[in-house]
Amino acid sequence: MAEHTNLSTPSFGFVGLGNMGSVMSQNLADYAQKEGFPKVKIWNRSRSKSEQLATEGFFEISDTLEDLARRCNIIHACLANDEVALSVYRQILDVAKPGIVLVDHSTLYPDISTTLRAEAIAEGSSFLSCPVFGPPAAAKSANLLVVLSGDGNARSLLKKYVVPTLGRAMIDCGDDTRKGALLKILGNSCILGTIELLSESFTLAEKTGFDAELFYEFIQQWFPAPAWMNYGKKIRDGAFSGTTGFTIPGGMKDASYIRRLGVETSTPTPTIDQAWSHLTTAKALGGDSLDWSSCSAGMRVTAGLPPFKGEDFTLAKR
Amino acid sequence: MAEHTNLSTPSFGFVGLGNMGSVMSQNLADYAQKEGFPKVKIWNRSRSKSEQLATEGFFEISDTLEDLARRCNIIHACLANDEVALSVYRQILDVAKPGIVLVDHSTLYPDISTTLRAEAIAEGSSFLSCPVFGPPAAAKSANLLVVLSGDGNARSLLKKYVVPTLGRAMIDCGDDTRKGALLKILGNSCILGTIELLSESFTLAEKTGFDAELFYEFIQQWFPAPAWMNYGKKIRDGAFSGTTGFTIPGGMKDASYIRRLGVETSTPTPTIDQAWSHLTTAKALGGDSLDWSSCSAGMRVTAGLPPFKGEDFTLAKR
Amino acid sequence: MAEHTNLSTPSFGFVGLGNMGSVMSQNLADYAQKEGFPKVKIWNRSRSKSEQLATEGFFEISDTLEDLARRCNIIHACLANDEVALSVYRQILDVAKPGIVLVDHSTLYPDISTTLRAEAIAEGSSFLSCPVFGPPAAAKSANLLVVLSGDGNARSLLKKYVVPTLGRAMIDCGDDTRKGALLKILGNSCILGTIELLSESFTLAEKTGFDAELFYEFIQQWFPAPAWMNYGKKIRDGAFSGTTGFTIPGGMKDASYIRRLGVETSTPTPTIDQAWSHLTTAKALGGDSLDWSSCSAGMRVTAGLPPFKGEDFTLAKR
Amino acid sequence: MAEHTNLSTPSFGFVGLGNMGSVMSQNLADYAQKEGFPKVKIWNRSRSKSEQLATEGFFEISDTLEDLARRCNIIHACLANDEVALSVYRQILDVAKPGIVLVDHSTLYPDISTTLRAEAIAEGSSFLSCPVFGPPAAAKSANLLVVLSGDGNARSLLKKYVVPTLGRAMIDCGDDTRKGALLKILGNSCILGTIELLSESFTLAEKTGFDAELFYEFIQQWFPAPAWMNYGKKIRDGAFSGTTGFTIPGGMKDASYIRRLGVETSTPTPTIDQAWSHLTTAKALGGDSLDWSSCSAGMRVTAGLPPFKGEDFTLAKR
Repeated sequence: MAEHTNLSTPSFGFVGLGNMGSVMSQNLADYAQKEGFPKVKIWNRSRSKSEQLATEGFFEISDTLEDLARRCNIIHACLANDEVALSVYRQILDVAKPGIVLVDHSTLYPDISTTLRAEAIAEGSSFLSCPVFGPPAAAKSANLLVVLSGDGNARSLLKKYVVPTLGRAMIDCGDDTRKGALLKILGNSCILGTIELLSESFTLAEKTGFDAELFYEFIQQWFPAPAWMNYGKKIRDGAFSGTTGFTIPGGMKDASYIRRLGVETSTPTPTIDQAWSHLTTAKALGGDSLDWSSCSAGMRVTAGLPPFKGEDFTLAKR
Repeated sequence: MAEHTNLSTPSFGFVGLGNMGSVMSQNLADYAQKEGFPKVKIWNRSRSKSEQLATEGFFEISDTLEDLARRCNIIHACLANDEVALSVYRQILDVAKPGIVLVDHSTLYPDISTTLRAEAIAEGSSFLSCPVFGPPAAAKSANLLVVLSGDGNARSLLKKYVVPTLGRAMIDCGDDTRKGALLKILGNSCILGTIELLSESFTLAEKTGFDAELFYEFIQQWFPAPAWMNYGKKIRDGAFSGTTGFTIPGGMKDASYIRRLGVETSTPTPTIDQAWSHLTTAKALGGDSLDWSSCSAGMRVTAGLPPFKGEDFTLAKR
Repeated sequence: MAEHTNLSTPSFGFVGLGNMGSVMSQNLADYAQKEGFPKVKIWNRSRSKSEQLATEGFFEISDTLEDLARRCNIIHACLANDEVALSVYRQILDVAKPGIVLVDHSTLYPDISTTLRAEAIAEGSSFLSCPVFGPPAAAKSANLLVVLSGDGNARSLLKKYVVPTLGRAMIDCGDDTRKGALLKILGNSCILGTIELLSESFTLAEKTGFDAELFYEFIQQWFPAPAWMNYGKKIRDGAFSGTTGFTIPGGMKDASYIRRLGVETSTPTPTIDQAWSHLTTAKALGGDSLDWSSCSAGMRVTAGLPPFKGEDFTLAKR
Repeated sequence: MAEHTNLSTPSFGFVGLGNMGSVMSQNLADYAQKEGFPKVKIWNRSRSKSEQLATEGFFEISDTLEDLARRCNIIHACLANDEVALSVYRQILDVAKPGIVLVDHSTLYPDISTTLRAEAIAEGSSFLSCPVFGPPAAAKSANLLVVLSGDGNARSLLKKYVVPTLGRAMIDCGDDTRKGALLKILGNSCILGTIELLSESFTLAEKTGFDAELFYEFIQQWFPAPAWMNYGKKIRDGAFSGTTGFTIPGGMKDASYIRRLGVETSTPTPTIDQAWSHLTTAKALGGDSLDWSSCSAGMRVTAGLPPFKGEDFTLAKR
């Protein structure tokens, strides 16, 4: 049997360097450097992102995922979807020593996280569900809300650094990784619902002649929650360029998880269905690359308003 | 022509001593006492409330509304609906000296506030729209959000004390009282929408086996807004006794204002329509006296859950 | 006490000569002529319609409503709304002999028909609820579906001629006029719902590249009901000129009756709410004068399609 | 190259003997017998159905699907879903002579029918999309509406007998089998929408005290379409036993096709979403085996009514 890894000397890896992963890995690297741990090994499907990141911090590029898997014992990952996650974690578990800890920051369907946890345990390792709430800007300033679940020992290990390294607070969902994955989806349902509400109320404000700036002032005062302030601002300004946030297809993927949970448990999801319709309209009008707060463009046309204000994102213009 | 009142010596009145009015008037009375102003005159349709209040603070009961109107120059009021507001303010304006300031804390339809402002101006007086956000508990601790609009001079007068006497922050909507009344309705649409979202997501949490306490912990962390925390708690516990808050008919009155604005400006209001349906179901199951967060009871039955958890409010039980 | 009228010799009157009333009254006049009864007295708020009609058939214009009321014992009426109906029938009952029969073809809120029935009984007369289903073209060819309710004797009288004079079939709702008024509203809910379904499915057909003519052929084959074929054709062609049918405000009046019944009995009306939203959008885009099948214009924009096809009804074009 | 089949002497096969297939195949067998063609070969996944059918008509059981494929040149099939259809038709094409005609009566997603058509053409054969509208009772009396699309020659062949052998009318959608498959889904969207409307209006009728029998009489008079009369009756009676019709999972499969078309073409499907919610509630309350008209049970609970009337299908009772 393979030799067990020794977790008392963490050797971090980070896989998946997209919008979120690239900033989270930097905070992890700062922590590793400060603690005197080895450099954080990084790997990304497209190598260019790794190279850019390596110039900016306490990183070492791994040439292959297998190489990273062999040299690290705590591997964080932030992956695009269930399929990629299954593939990446299975490759890691195939070659890594027993006893490693996988820390998943992706939004996975709960069943997938259950499967991966079981496969990790079968290899003598641990799989932790560790999704986060907050946009890239919050990831950068370590202001994320971290949701943690999985085996007790591995969770204890993470609790030593996840706050304040990656986030400002943590919610502990216990042993069952399905719970953490569920909370990420339930939380996203609150966020998408918030986008829908803001879409409707800013539209009603505009149609009744109420000033959008002043309405946003109210939002700041009475709904001082990140999703309300962040998306309220984008909707106020019609700032739907998806470059810094979350695009329509990403939003619809999350919405499809919420609806799938609804189907599997026989629970209607009417506001999410409504948001889905508005996202559908926004996609028909402006295409895939818009931020999911463009849900409000879908709402606006139903009130006879032009879909966009400020910048014009209509497909025809391109 | 009648002698003008002298506003440099405020003589406060407070009309309408319901859940909100009774606590707001106490804060006003404390302020008057501290400043060395005369006792706050109070009047309420049913005298018993005045009498109870008078024992508790720096108050003087007026036997009639006319009496109060003649002796005060800044009259706050917190009234049940448009009809009562029209009647009360007109009685006051009929007998008061010119130059008084009416400060309305009710939720009025915007057109009504415009009418009342014009009638006050015609009498040489001022009418300020001054609705507030927050439940009675927030009124008690002067943590309300105050929305102010109306004539500039009168607004300046109010700004001297409304924060921190009645609330913790103020939004100034300018000269046009219609604006302030509008913001109250737009804000209520965010609150009712929040109740709808919480109803749906707590139901999905329960059906997927996610712990309600833990989900509420998430709400506190990521949606730290009064409406989310206040109604999230009620929905978590199924605590729909309407005695301390806002009942279904009150909620449907507000929803009907939102929908009426939608009709008049040709703006769909889909999430409010959905909340209306769930309130309708809740009313069919539990009757008029439930808190409007019982919207979630209407959602729960659509997922095959019993409408109520904890206390059973079914009509049949009574 | 006033002398009773003798119903064995019918003397018909017809009040309200709009799109429906003008064609229905002609069929009644043909019947009266054939049976050797007196000419049908007609009265309309604007006299020009009476004059035009008088040239076309077995009619006699009454100069005043009172005059008509005194000379007729069976008075049909087709009126715009509850308010007009209350006013017209009360004027008639004030001056008519006891024992007359009022036959109401309007769409009244059920409570109003109950009130009018009681007032007619108090005068020794009868009030029958007699709403009809079908567009003006069906009224012309006596292909309406007639819904009858009210006092037994008066109903027996009507049954002698209402089919085939005015319609091709009759549904007898018994003594209680509330029932007949209710059926009209319930039926309208099926018709507005049909318009909503057709709006959605023709839009999906267009977006998936399915030929609209062929889809209409399917409708004719599998949904051979007047509402499906009539509105299916209008939606297929984008033929929303409201001149020959029923306009958006008329449709929203009927929808508001359905929703009011929902409120009073605590019954959600989700598809009607959805149709209301689409009508709202259509009104925002094309104004009040469009046919209510323009509901589909409201649906089309949510799929990124231009609201209108064929004729362009956008407000901006006018 | 394999010898071509000779279509001038039809040799029929029928695969898939469920509720619909078993009655349709009998009509085909009667036709074959009358015309002096060979016995219709039948095959079904579970042989018992074939054996039962063979006793009742002009049939010959094939021991294997391959056997049937080799001996027939016109093969009708009525299959459960896309996956089964792909598997069955590919097995047939693998062993059959070139030049055969496949006639598909299943509800396939349009892309699947396009794939199968291409695969048939590659083998020198034809694939026709031939879905039908109507319940088993209409299939028995050959009162189906038949939708036909595919290669011209094969279509001409079918047109010789499909009406009146299988149905009372046919809609020709041309060469492209995608069109026929689309029309089946678009038509199902009208049917599911009809079930939703009937659910809402029968509920409103009951809550307003209107007699359900009388309301059904209205439906028969003014909406004389099979879906309205068939499902109106079931909803009137609460007759949701799924044994003779179409169950909730079947309905949700069809609804998922409609929604998938909506996703792929960016078209909202709000009434189908609403029906989906009511089906979800019905499933939560009564389980999978109910007829899809139990959508009305989902609507009824939102109005505070017990979900079922007449027979009680609640899960708890079982």
